[in-house]
Amino acid sequence: MSEEELNLNCPFPINKYPTVQMAHGGGGRLMNQLLDELIIPVLGDEELERRHDGAVLDIPGDRIAYTTDSYVVDPLFFSGGNIGTLAVNGTVNDLAMCGAEPKFITTSFILEEGFPIKDLQKIINSIKEASEQAGVQIVSGDTKVVQQGRGDGIYINTSGVGHLEKNVSIGPEKLEPGDALIVSGDVGRHGMAVMADREGLEFETDICSDCAPLNEPVRKLLGAGIEVHFLRDLTRGGLASAANEAADQAGLGLEILEANIPVHPQVKSSCEILGFDPLYVASEGCMIIAVDETEAEEVVELLSQFSTCRRATRIGRVVKEHPGRVELTGVIGATRVLEMLSGEQLPRIC
Amino acid sequence: MSEEELNLNCPFPINKYPTVQMAHGGGGRLMNQLLDELIIPVLGDEELERRHDGAVLDIPGDRIAYTTDSYVVDPLFFSGGNIGTLAVNGTVNDLAMCGAEPKFITTSFILEEGFPIKDLQKIINSIKEASEQAGVQIVSGDTKVVQQGRGDGIYINTSGVGHLEKNVSIGPEKLEPGDALIVSGDVGRHGMAVMADREGLEFETDICSDCAPLNEPVRKLLGAGIEVHFLRDLTRGGLASAANEAADQAGLGLEILEANIPVHPQVKSSCEILGFDPLYVASEGCMIIAVDETEAEEVVELLSQFSTCRRATRIGRVVKEHPGRVELTGVIGATRVLEMLSGEQLPRIC
Repeated sequence: MSEEELNLNCPFPINKYPTVQMAHGGGGRLMNQLLDELIIPVLGDEELERRHDGAVLDIPGDRIAYTTDSYVVDPLFFSGGNIGTLAVNGTVNDLAMCGAEPKFITTSFILEEGFPIKDLQKIINSIKEASEQAGVQIVSGDTKVVQQGRGDGIYINTSGVGHLEKNVSIGPEKLEPGDALIVSGDVGRHGMAVMADREGLEFETDICSDCAPLNEPVRKLLGAGIEVHFLRDLTRGGLASAANEAADQAGLGLEILEANIPVHPQVKSSCEILGFDPLYVASEGCMIIAVDETEAEEVVELLSQFSTCRRATRIGRVVKEHPGRVELTGVIGATRVLEMLSGEQLPRIC
Repeated sequence: MSEEELNLNCPFPINKYPTVQMAHGGGGRLMNQLLDELIIPVLGDEELERRHDGAVLDIPGDRIAYTTDSYVVDPLFFSGGNIGTLAVNGTVNDLAMCGAEPKFITTSFILEEGFPIKDLQKIINSIKEASEQAGVQIVSGDTKVVQQGRGDGIYINTSGVGHLEKNVSIGPEKLEPGDALIVSGDVGRHGMAVMADREGLEFETDICSDCAPLNEPVRKLLGAGIEVHFLRDLTRGGLASAANEAADQAGLGLEILEANIPVHPQVKSSCEILGFDPLYVASEGCMIIAVDETEAEEVVELLSQFSTCRRATRIGRVVKEHPGRVELTGVIGATRVLEMLSGEQLPRIC
């Protein structure tokens, strides 16, 4: 969109205040202008337009899934998305990992004084797009402003509420020895995309974040009658952390074949150069799934129908041996323990 | 609690890491330690202990209220509370303003590298206390860490879900000409308490924030069969902004008698010294209520039974004249328009 079109479409006086002012968070006229002219017209939900203290919502059934996450990704814009895309998809996916149908989202902004209004517009537009793609309504929000040097452009918190069918029960306590482990796609793409953009890597790379909603693939599995035992998206700490949390919480062992884990060649080579292990690098559109061994093939087939999951692969199994521990069999056949991430590999990836 | 007791009660190696490290937000071992040893044992909810992506919750009925707010108050600790108290009560009150019964809260922290772990402990303890007082469960959360100079100690986002009875419908669209306007207490105390602590005011002051949950008083009114038309807590922008939003959204006029508005004498004198108008200063435990004129007396009487509302007073009425405008009749009888807050009077008050 050209600058002129942007001005035509947005009555916010972008020329008067090209950057965020302290008063944009003050509860007064300028904050209302920001909401009325920039945020609400784009996000445009009926509930949001009510300008309430809280949204009043109808939700069928007596069971909900409920989650929250704050996003501090650096840089704000990266190959494949931005902090807004991430904030919506991250929360959508957390609900999907409960087996819930994501319904409602809240968005809350902590803006740094001086943040360009144009960047805010881009992020709000991405939030709108991502929420439409995932089929969720943005029903409530908040805006705060902090002084220059007390933030980093924009931090976003999203929370989400989803509808949960009575018979759905997914969690580490449902894991059983013999269960098959499947990943829905290649791992580590989000983390390496952010790293590449942050550090301005000197080698050629077009790694794109995998940031995407996973609620449709999950809905497909549940709709097909698959009895999903466990789901977790591979965000902070990557596959290694998700697997370790599962083993720890289930009190069972996990066995994974390294050769089966899909990794994009450019992710692999970037990781080698930087000394990272892709199994610890965050994805934002990839999950691990555990189902009974007999259903594994169908799961891979169902997932493969989605562009975001076309590299779905069976990578291992649950065992009753070595409870709490994840064992990784390497390409040449040697087995080692896949530890939980310790320390901080990649700060501010989400 | 002495320092020694603190160490005994909290197995978190406070001596090893007396301040927040980047790795506390990394999704790995150190983050899990922070959660396991500091946050979860204090907040201690069954859902939180599940360490899920999202909480799975039973909530009766098909109707919920849902809200979010981020808190960036400066200073973090002030007379009458801290950012933790504020974050819980603010969200509880937003739900109460819908006429809902607050049930579930999420808490999400953006920590600045170097933030003292002891301060974090104090804030977590306050969150626990405030949530117990309000009767809400903390069911999900998140922790992120940003580099020194990219935050300001701690920012907290809370979101909340409440249960809403079928027959409850409260909002500006329910306002009617002739409705009585009541405030539940004296206004502006929170803002001036924060200001006093921030600026180290040179005059003697023991103004204490009014930060408190309002869900019990609201429950009492609804339980007594009062048909509440409108409720709003007097946070950012104070009474003036809440009144203007009501008038604007209802398309009706409001008339307020300045002499009837309760203001603590120390709030009044501090405001005079600093050149503030208390009608624009935030409260965090005070609301405006509109009911049919015939129910006004009962409302004041019911509210007065609560220590937080013992100064409940009728301050004005809704009229069909001057739609969208709030008129204030001053102590000496002259009437002026009470404008919406423009600009930024008190930054980072909540």
